Formats: sequence, C-alpha cells, structure tokens
Amino acid sequence: MGSLRFTHDTLAQRVVFSTGQAVDAAAEEITRLGAGRPMIISAEGTHHVAEKLAAVLPPVQHWRDAVQHVPRSVADAATAAARADEADIIISIGGGSATGLAKAIALDTGLPIIAVPTTYAASEATPVWGITEQRTKTTGTDAGVLPRVVIYDADLVATLPQPMAIASGLNAMAHSIDSLWAPKADPINRALALESARALATALRGLATGQGQAAREQALYGCYLSGVTFASAGSGLHHKICHVLGGTFNLPHAETHAVVLRYVAALNLPTVPATAADLAAALGSEDALDGLNRLYQQVGAPASLAELDMPEDGITEAVDRVLKAVPAGNPVEVTADNLTMLLTAAYHGHDPARITDFAEGTTR
Amino acid sequence: MGSLRFTHDTLAQRVVFSTGQAVDAAAEEITRLGAGRPMIISAEGTHHVAEKLAAVLPPVQHWRDAVQHVPRSVADAATAAARADEADIIISIGGGSATGLAKAIALDTGLPIIAVPTTYAASEATPVWGITEQRTKTTGTDAGVLPRVVIYDADLVATLPQPMAIASGLNAMAHSIDSLWAPKADPINRALALESARALATALRGLATGQGQAAREQALYGCYLSGVTFASAGSGLHHKICHVLGGTFNLPHAETHAVVLRYVAALNLPTVPATAADLAAALGSEDALDGLNRLYQQVGAPASLAELDMPEDGITEAVDRVLKAVPAGNPVEVTADNLTMLLTAAYHGHDPARITDFAEGTTR
Repeated sequence: MGSLRFTHDTLAQRVVFSTGQAVDAAAEEITRLGAGRPMIISAEGTHHVAEKLAAVLPPVQHWRDAVQHVPRSVADAATAAARADEADIIISIGGGSATGLAKAIALDTGLPIIAVPTTYAASEATPVWGITEQRTKTTGTDAGVLPRVVIYDADLVATLPQPMAIASGLNAMAHSIDSLWAPKADPINRALALESARALATALRGLATGQGQAAREQALYGCYLSGVTFASAGSGLHHKICHVLGGTFNLPHAETHAVVLRYVAALNLPTVPATAADLAAALGSEDALDGLNRLYQQVGAPASLAELDMPEDGITEAVDRVLKAVPAGNPVEVTADNLTMLLTAAYHGHDPARITDFAEGTTR
Repeated sequence: MGSLRFTHDTLAQRVVFSTGQAVDAAAEEITRLGAGRPMIISAEGTHHVAEKLAAVLPPVQHWRDAVQHVPRSVADAATAAARADEADIIISIGGGSATGLAKAIALDTGLPIIAVPTTYAASEATPVWGITEQRTKTTGTDAGVLPRVVIYDADLVATLPQPMAIASGLNAMAHSIDSLWAPKADPINRALALESARALATALRGLATGQGQAAREQALYGCYLSGVTFASAGSGLHHKICHVLGGTFNLPHAETHAVVLRYVAALNLPTVPATAADLAAALGSEDALDGLNRLYQQVGAPASLAELDMPEDGITEAVDRVLKAVPAGNPVEVTADNLTMLLTAAYHGHDPARITDFAEGTTR
C-alpha cells in the first residue's frame, strides 16, 4: 500500500489582516520592503483610500483607470507610466481590475506588488495574470506577478452591495470546493480548502444576517485561502464549465460560479465520500450537498442560469465546449449525458440532488 | 467587534512526496533548478542513498561527516569544501544533523538546498539554523537556509527503530500542538497544525501497530506540516520548557518533547475550549487531553522525565529558567506554582489531568 504521492509548491506571500488600518499597514509594508517610489492604482470606489495613502506616503504616480479584464492598451499605458516615473513598487487598491492591472505591470517590469483588495475576487492570492486584446483574454501564470504582500481591511468591503457580496463569497467558495477534485489536488491544498469553506460558510451566513465586520473579516479570510488553494490545485470541472459559460454567453462572473457550484458538487461528491464528509463538517452539516443547499437558501444565493440570461438553447454548445476541456482527475467520468443533465438542472435551478441520483447511476 | 488581526508570512518551498523514488526525484529537482554541481551530505545510515544518487548524478563533493548540533569546525570545513569544489546546490540526505549542516553551508554561501529527510525532525520545513561552538548553540532564522525543495520518501524512514519513530512523531506533534498558543499563532497556521495533528495521530497508531508504509507516509506528511506551522507560529510554552530541560540537563530531544507535551496541553487546553474541541476532533476523540492520553497509551510513548534521567532536584532550577522565557500570549498565566506542579507531574509521569484541575483553579 501507500498512496501519498504529490508535489506541492507553496508560494511566498505575506498577508496582513488589519481591519480599519489598510493605509497605515500599506505605508509600513512599503517601507519594510525598502521601497520609496510607490505607484498607486485605484478604481472606481477606492480613489478615496488611495488618496489617504498618498497623503501619508506621496506616490510617484496615482493611476485611476483600472478597467475590467485588463485591456492591453491600459496595461501598456500604465506600464509606461510606471517606467517613466521610476516607480519601485505598485500598490493596487481595488477588486480584480486593480489587482489585474498591477499584475500586468509587474509582468513587464518585475516590480513588487502590495495588493489591498476591496472585493472577494481572490486574485491577489494567485500568480495568474490576464490581459485582453481584440476581445481575447490571454492568461498565464508567473510567480513574479503574485503580490508580495496582501493587506485585508474589512472596512473596505463594507460598501459592497449585499447581493454582490453573497455572489462573490460563493465564487470564492467555488474556488475551494472545486480544488477538492482539481488536477493538482493534494492533502495540503485540501486542508486549506476545507478551512476556507468553513470560514466562507460562517461569513456568508453572517453577511446575510447583517453581522457586519466580523462576517466581512471571515469572508476575506476564507476568500484568501480560496485563492491560495485554487492557485495550488488548479482549475477543476467547475471552473472549466464556468469559463465556457462566461466566455460563450458573457454571463456575470461571480453569479455564474455561484449557480454552477452546487451542480458540480452534486455530480462529484457521491463518488468521494471521505471528502464529502469533511466538507459537510466544514459547512456545519450532516451532508455536504444538504449543507450547501441550506446555505444557498439562507443567504439568498443566485439560483439558476436562466435568471442570468443564459439562452436555453445554448446548453448543447456549452456541453460540446466543456467536453473538450474536462480536467484530469475528475472523480466522475464526464459525458455528454451527465453534463447535459447538469447544465439543464443549473439552467432551471432544479434541486441538485437529481444530478446526484444520475451520477450515482453512472458509477454503479 | 471584529477580531481578525494578524500578519502571516508564507515561505516558498516545493515539497515532493515520492515513496521509493527519492533518488530519481532528487536528480529531477537538481536539473529543474538548473544546477549541475551538487554537493551531497549524508550521515550514518544514509550513505547508501547518497551513493545511489551519486551514481545517477555525480557530485562535486560527497560529505559524509554530519554530526549532531552542527559543530562550528564541521560547518566551516564543509563550507570550505563547497566553495573549493564550486558546488552550486546542496543535497542533504539524513536527519536533523545532515539538514542542519546543509543550512550552515547555505547561511555562508547562499547555495540552495534540496533536503531528503530520513527522520521526523521537521527542520527541513523551517528557516531556523543552529551552529554549536564551545558548547554553546547559536540559532537564528534566515529565509536563505530554508530548503528550496524537500523530498519525502517513506522507504527512507523504514529502518528507524520503533521507539525512536514514536518519540520523533510525538516531537512533531508537539510542534503542531504548541503552535496553537505560540506567540504568532493565527488561523492559517492553526488550520495546518490541526491537519498535522490529525495526520500524526493516524500515523503514530499505524506505526505502533506495524502498518508500515502508509503510516510512515502519514508521519512524514504530518511532520512536514508540523515544521511549517512551527516556523510560522514560533515557540510556545512547550518549546521553551523543553529547551530549558534539554540545555540544562542534556536530556534526549525527542523523548523530552514527547513527555512534556501532555502536561503543557493539560495546563493550556481548559482555557481555550474552541481550540481544544478542534484538537479533540483531529485526534479522533471527544476530549483533546483524553485523546492525547489514549494515543500515548496506544503507542507506548515515553511517560516521565525521571525515565529520561532528569535529576529530580533539577525542577527548581528548571522552573527559574523557564519563568524567564515564558512566551507572549500563553493562554494561562505561567507562575512558579503551576510550572512546579507541571514539571513535578511530568517528572513522575503522573496523570496530566491533575494539571488541568490546578490550571482551572488558577483561572477562576
């Protein structure tokens, strides 16, 4: 016997949880890293935080134009500005757009990044970059774009509208749960994924019932670990499906992940009972899928792809595309049949248990 | 409210679990790192593994003189040899002595290390180095001495005598449990500590009942995480006590840790009920201290400081020394009274529950 065979790469990163003190923490970390010529990137809604930091530590450049999906033109202009002003560090304050732009600059210049996230996007915890040119997004992985420091301040996510916070938190939950069966799943990222799922379940219930700061702190913490585990384990079936749905039908990112997660869980969980039991415990439930279903009800999660305006006749195309991208090691063999059933159920928002019955049928 | 305030530094490291294939894995990692002039360090009992690696990838130097506690003279001679032979990477194959010598060379030369551990010492997962000169051990922390790659091969620990394997596994368990209340304890190293304790409890029961390879793999896995979490959380009360006992009375390292652990746990656990509950679950028990006690019985753990030949009249001196080194943030205020009680109970191998009663008395 003996079956413990894996290679795990842990990436170096400092993470600071510092509610209410992002500005002071950022200034301290800039100094600690020996930098003195910061370039600050902020986005809509975070300019005021950037200005507070600028008042403490004047930047050589304050870039206010962070756009979704990091257009090549913006990346090039921001990189040129960083060079022209001889910036020696980038501080991104914002969601995925700000972090993404900082990564694009780092990719070209090698500058270190301090990320101050203001959503639950989790890209601050991954070495994945993406740049969009002529409507095509190119992505890659480069250790140099992983922020050296991440500063989480729960006050900065306080203004996220609740539906967005819920969808975004479930998107983070999807990183964690999908990593349980992703191609590079291993015991280490599994332990972090379960801890992340536990924190996110607590956080989401707290966000839904207005528990404020403590819930936001747990959400950021769970979100951070979801990024760490996703970066380590890679994209599982869930992410491949959502990538196809997002790219083909231009569906909203976090909401799509929130909807699809339960159906992929329903397909895979019955075939990995030990993992399912651990996930159930993390969700505070007897059964993992029941626990997810109850959580979705409690927090008012998005329920169907139909309500995200996916065209119903797109299911066939989506099935075809996903079948070409099924990741290695998914515990259930993915077929046109079970994928069609999965997407049909997700389209209508049917009870995911139907998928479970189907999946169990296929593996007996 | 809101209480999530911490800074966590994750250190970069690649860890490879590769039972039966350490030699191939080492050769592969040397090549992957772009190195071609390896210096191999082996110790008593591991020369044959080193020779197998040398047959695959001839070293510029094979150093066979790794001694406990890294004497300065050995460190200097090995460093000079690394320089003279223009080594570009160090591969240590052995326990703490081999890893420790590799770290001493790296401290001076900046050479990367690939560690192939053959005990459960866990120093391969920490950036802590130590060098002994004139009977005084100087230790320090330097990111540059953390091995870049660790290769675990459960076959290489197969020849560890069982009592040593048990004591060494409990020493690793002590890293993990002590980190639950160490000065830099945080939710991330806590999650890893609990996963480590779970794996080590499984492993120790397996080692005690002759389960062989699967048990050794779990032991190495739990040991690895114990080093990661210890490096992150720092020395808690347990380690301060053992450091004093080891230094003052020259007690055997792993056995001392094995004995003392239950008593520190008995002192602290009653005051941290949430942590105690999670530890109990990790140990597969209703109660954490009961779980530890049962585990100790099942595996035939060392039971008392008396059987390690500590002088009974040394307790007073030990108490004095520990009181000067009590770490910040221990959940129970450490006093001459409760420390004397703790060490007296540990000396005689009394039921640790007596400490619990005492500790509860002091905190009410």
